[in-house]
Amino acid sequence: MDLSNIGEFGFINRIRRLVTHSHPALTTGIGDDAAVLEPGEGFGVLLSTDAMVEGRHFRREWMSPRQIGGRAAAAALSDIAAMGGEALAILCTICIDPAWPVDEAEQLFVGMQALAERSGAGLAGGDVVSAPGPLLIDITAVGRARTRAIWRRSGARLGDRLLLTGCVGDAAAAVDLLNSEDALSVDCFPGLLTALREPSPRLDVAAALSGDPAVHAAIDTSDGLLSDAGHIAEASGVGIQISAADIPVSRELLECARLLRRDPLQWAAGGGEDFELLLAVDPSAADDIRARMLERGLRLVDIGHIIEGDGASLLDETGTQMSVERGGWDHFRR
Amino acid sequence: MDLSNIGEFGFINRIRRLVTHSHPALTTGIGDDAAVLEPGEGFGVLLSTDAMVEGRHFRREWMSPRQIGGRAAAAALSDIAAMGGEALAILCTICIDPAWPVDEAEQLFVGMQALAERSGAGLAGGDVVSAPGPLLIDITAVGRARTRAIWRRSGARLGDRLLLTGCVGDAAAAVDLLNSEDALSVDCFPGLLTALREPSPRLDVAAALSGDPAVHAAIDTSDGLLSDAGHIAEASGVGIQISAADIPVSRELLECARLLRRDPLQWAAGGGEDFELLLAVDPSAADDIRARMLERGLRLVDIGHIIEGDGASLLDETGTQMSVERGGWDHFRR
Repeated sequence: MDLSNIGEFGFINRIRRLVTHSHPALTTGIGDDAAVLEPGEGFGVLLSTDAMVEGRHFRREWMSPRQIGGRAAAAALSDIAAMGGEALAILCTICIDPAWPVDEAEQLFVGMQALAERSGAGLAGGDVVSAPGPLLIDITAVGRARTRAIWRRSGARLGDRLLLTGCVGDAAAAVDLLNSEDALSVDCFPGLLTALREPSPRLDVAAALSGDPAVHAAIDTSDGLLSDAGHIAEASGVGIQISAADIPVSRELLECARLLRRDPLQWAAGGGEDFELLLAVDPSAADDIRARMLERGLRLVDIGHIIEGDGASLLDETGTQMSVERGGWDHFRR
Repeated sequence: MDLSNIGEFGFINRIRRLVTHSHPALTTGIGDDAAVLEPGEGFGVLLSTDAMVEGRHFRREWMSPRQIGGRAAAAALSDIAAMGGEALAILCTICIDPAWPVDEAEQLFVGMQALAERSGAGLAGGDVVSAPGPLLIDITAVGRARTRAIWRRSGARLGDRLLLTGCVGDAAAAVDLLNSEDALSVDCFPGLLTALREPSPRLDVAAALSGDPAVHAAIDTSDGLLSDAGHIAEASGVGIQISAADIPVSRELLECARLLRRDPLQWAAGGGEDFELLLAVDPSAADDIRARMLERGLRLVDIGHIIEGDGASLLDETGTQMSVERGGWDHFRR
């Protein structure tokens, strides 16, 4: 049975049954002209949109429909984490070929709903349209943060330390691995594949550090570590130096780089499609923050600092600037 | 010069220059990980998403890129009006073929921005991705309304009068006209074409009636008058009777029906893709509301009332139920 058998309204009714959880601030969900959110006094509402298109951001051979849906929700919710926010809701539009089997199409929403639910957010609306061609998932993530505690890109100050919430480059390595001729070894890198297929937005870090005045600026690493550091530098009117040797990478990433004869740093600093957070924090508080986070099982790594100047640069052990091919997925140039 | 020449980031920079207006409640717009909105105390935030796909919702021969963008924004913002809300912002994702000329692609945003600006809303974010194939525009509209004054579909009460904010069926008639063999006569129906190409969400009516306790329920007529009346009936647990003779239609619609040998009522009651509002109001206040609105130049028409029962039905002058092919665009069935 494919989508053309049950129609748009039939499919929407199936999706609606999946929605089991809703944040208390979401007072009206699916079923009226618009969803209604009551963020509470003193809260700002955070809104961000992120689209994923088959053949451009992912291939169906790479992951299951459930994983595709979950990844789309994670990418959108990561922007809420990057503002220091709490997730409230997602709205999802899909444009899908009517020849998709209903069960598989439904799995997109199962994955999306599961990720949203783990993040505390409910599916609050969206649209379903059909057109022949690649699958598109567009998700608007909605969150909230106390107005005074919102993390912006523009708040980094001279001397701030740069903390990163986890290993970077795994997703980029997984894409290259899946694209490589060496299909047999794919199964040897379960961690890389999980990074690509089942990423988690760092809402845990945002929740733990929200309201801490020592956090001056933040961004997620979806465009690639060096590009995103550059965004902070530009918005804050400062320069950023990152020590290449301090960037945390997974053991699988290093092994995969050896197998494919690639430079692991290209993945880690230039890769993109990770959803770690990069934080500019007061230097006098950096060690304390790292220690407090470690007690909660969250390992933040100090990878650099804010200087006078502009742009983000990557330095080797001798302090010499290194060159990395910037990631970031510019979808018009090929 | 097409989009592949300037790249995604180049195009986004051009779009950003177009954004001239922002609602005061939108405290951070484009340029950070997420937009920030401060709705104010006592306000609920309204969120709705609406997607338009080329070849399904419109054809490029039918309207200019500027009109396509404006229509997409109007459709999304209409849902804010239907909740009795004030427009604050839109977020827009487009999926577009890289072969589009840059100037034409930019016109999509010119039209969207102009409509949003007229509505008081700023462009607050979105995403731009490219894929070969039909154009897709997905817009999330964001609004606000005082929590106690939000219009829901579920509030209609027995005896309520049903008021409609304007003529219906013009957009559906325009689609049939453009699809007809009779291309020569298209120019004789400028009003129908305008209804399709440059619709306005009824935020004026929402603003004028917001907070009036006599308005019990509302919906916009995007699925077609009879279908949308049916949504109110279902959500409110009531029946609705609409008097076919009272449904306001334009003179052009009647003339076009004669030319194409079509039943004008099919367009008016079954058509869809109009953005008028259908309001269930207290019967003792209905005439007063109509008079007050008329003073503002807004003509509301009494087309029926709420009864015990279920579903929405259309009656002729003798009280006999008439049959209309329901509109609503079910995108999987063809």
